[in-house]
Amino acid sequence: MALKLSIDVMGGDRTPDEAVIGACAFARENAGITVILVGREDNINSLLKREEEGVPSNIEIVHADEVVGMEESPVTAVKEKKDSSIAKAVNLVKEGKADAIISAGNTGVSVAQSTLGLRRIENIKRPGIINPFPSEKDIFYMIDAGANSETKAEFLFQHAVIGAVYCKYMLEKEHPRVALLNIGTEESKGNERVREAHRMINEIKNPFFEYKGFIEGTDLFTGEYDLVVSEGFVGNVVLKIAEGLSRSLMKVIKGEIASSLVRKAASSVLTGAFEEIKERFGYERYGGAMLLGVNGICTILHGASPRLAFINGLEATKKLCESEINEHITEYISLLKKDA
Amino acid sequence: MALKLSIDVMGGDRTPDEAVIGACAFARENAGITVILVGREDNINSLLKREEEGVPSNIEIVHADEVVGMEESPVTAVKEKKDSSIAKAVNLVKEGKADAIISAGNTGVSVAQSTLGLRRIENIKRPGIINPFPSEKDIFYMIDAGANSETKAEFLFQHAVIGAVYCKYMLEKEHPRVALLNIGTEESKGNERVREAHRMINEIKNPFFEYKGFIEGTDLFTGEYDLVVSEGFVGNVVLKIAEGLSRSLMKVIKGEIASSLVRKAASSVLTGAFEEIKERFGYERYGGAMLLGVNGICTILHGASPRLAFINGLEATKKLCESEINEHITEYISLLKKDA
Repeated sequence: MALKLSIDVMGGDRTPDEAVIGACAFARENAGITVILVGREDNINSLLKREEEGVPSNIEIVHADEVVGMEESPVTAVKEKKDSSIAKAVNLVKEGKADAIISAGNTGVSVAQSTLGLRRIENIKRPGIINPFPSEKDIFYMIDAGANSETKAEFLFQHAVIGAVYCKYMLEKEHPRVALLNIGTEESKGNERVREAHRMINEIKNPFFEYKGFIEGTDLFTGEYDLVVSEGFVGNVVLKIAEGLSRSLMKVIKGEIASSLVRKAASSVLTGAFEEIKERFGYERYGGAMLLGVNGICTILHGASPRLAFINGLEATKKLCESEINEHITEYISLLKKDA
Repeated sequence: MALKLSIDVMGGDRTPDEAVIGACAFARENAGITVILVGREDNINSLLKREEEGVPSNIEIVHADEVVGMEESPVTAVKEKKDSSIAKAVNLVKEGKADAIISAGNTGVSVAQSTLGLRRIENIKRPGIINPFPSEKDIFYMIDAGANSETKAEFLFQHAVIGAVYCKYMLEKEHPRVALLNIGTEESKGNERVREAHRMINEIKNPFFEYKGFIEGTDLFTGEYDLVVSEGFVGNVVLKIAEGLSRSLMKVIKGEIASSLVRKAASSVLTGAFEEIKERFGYERYGGAMLLGVNGICTILHGASPRLAFINGLEATKKLCESEINEHITEYISLLKKDA
């Protein structure tokens, strides 16, 4: 059956414009996939009129009256805005009318709405956000980037397993390299949760992934790991620090360069290099994060996503649907249950 | 009375050489301060012979037979190496023969040895490591950078107060700006510990510092805060990620620049700028971290510290001793007790 991707075109800082433009570009390249734009119909229609190449025939619209703001509380938004674009996008998946949701809106609301609407996969205790990061060499994923603010050893353990399944199919690696983030590499380091999760992962019989044990923050960006497992509070801080620090560092570098005239002349030659670095380290390239562990595919994009991020997010979502990621997660988790 | 600083010259990756050279340079500039080199006497003496300007008369040596390695377990090291350079350096302070300890050795061991030997300041529940970071504008401190792997709201609260006292004297700011690291800025965000600490700080009557509330990782390096409070696990990850990410980013930038010949020519002009950035973002400049909350001054330097880091560490330690930081901490903590 043909794929149907449901995109919340209202949530985010640069929507609906960038979402609609990105969705049309993706739809044009993927004639076999239906792209459902969920949001204010009049807004969407006036944007579609601007499409110079015309509206692709595989674009559909589902009207949603309400929009959830970036700062709204998930609890209130889920309870009070039943007709929001994100709620309707989730409902399409719940009712079998779409295969996946893509949103650049309020992350907490996307997580709450999807968890509530789609329910957890059987035996999964807590869904987790798996987020891509650039490394020195290529790319790695981190789970949980902030779906949960409290954790237990079992949540960390399950996130290692379902995150490894994700990497297996997204990175197409037979044996993804998995590490657990800690404050030291010795067995005695860290808190009880992380030590217990470490023991649990080590006890898996014939794991399909390669478990590298504890790593420290220093090792995160070296490119030696495909998946780094961390509690949600830490993962969220890491995600935001990576963004903030990279930005501050680039600002300082540009400031230093501009502080001398000769350097300024030289720096104009380097503009191309800086652009390449910015692109390589930009989140736009990486297809967004995913809420892993719910019955459905839910792709979470950066709030400031431009059209390129929507296109890549749709591409990643398509790949996830085609790889039947959730069927594989169910299978691996039930294998572990039998082993235990 | 004249200050006496006790320096563990054995702990660290580039010791005793860099420690002894740095200590001599500092001693020469600070004739009124006694600098006690603690370590293997023969090693120290052969290094002192190489000092071209001669050995300053305010240098003393205390022999210590054992050395604690960088990877040793704190529990074992404290129990089994009673004659280590760090144990002897701590003992000098304990016995009133020195005012402060400086070490670039195993952080866990420095923390354990100092906490055990010097005891906690009255009413302080847990000592915390306060660590300097470069910001876009200047410098900020973070507490706890890893002394504790578990936390409670009260520890976070106390760290906010004693960290603010530290900033008041180290940065010479009447009203340091204090923030609490969280995964969102709304009151409802984060775990129960961080929310409770937030309420406790807000309840302080007439605080001497300016409380800015919750901040996210994105805001850490903007220079808008003097002190960021965080649990030790998160603080340690942040510390190591800042180091790892900066290194990876610089490596990628240099790689991109070297990938084109024209850029390569331009980049040679920029070498000076990169050196300035490296220096500005290098830990060597910032005088090291401090274990705050014990009865004594304990400065913790980066394991790879070169002589400059030892000199700046000694300078910072001198400033801390002269400002009578621990008397101020005692005073503020007892004021809070009376308020409660």
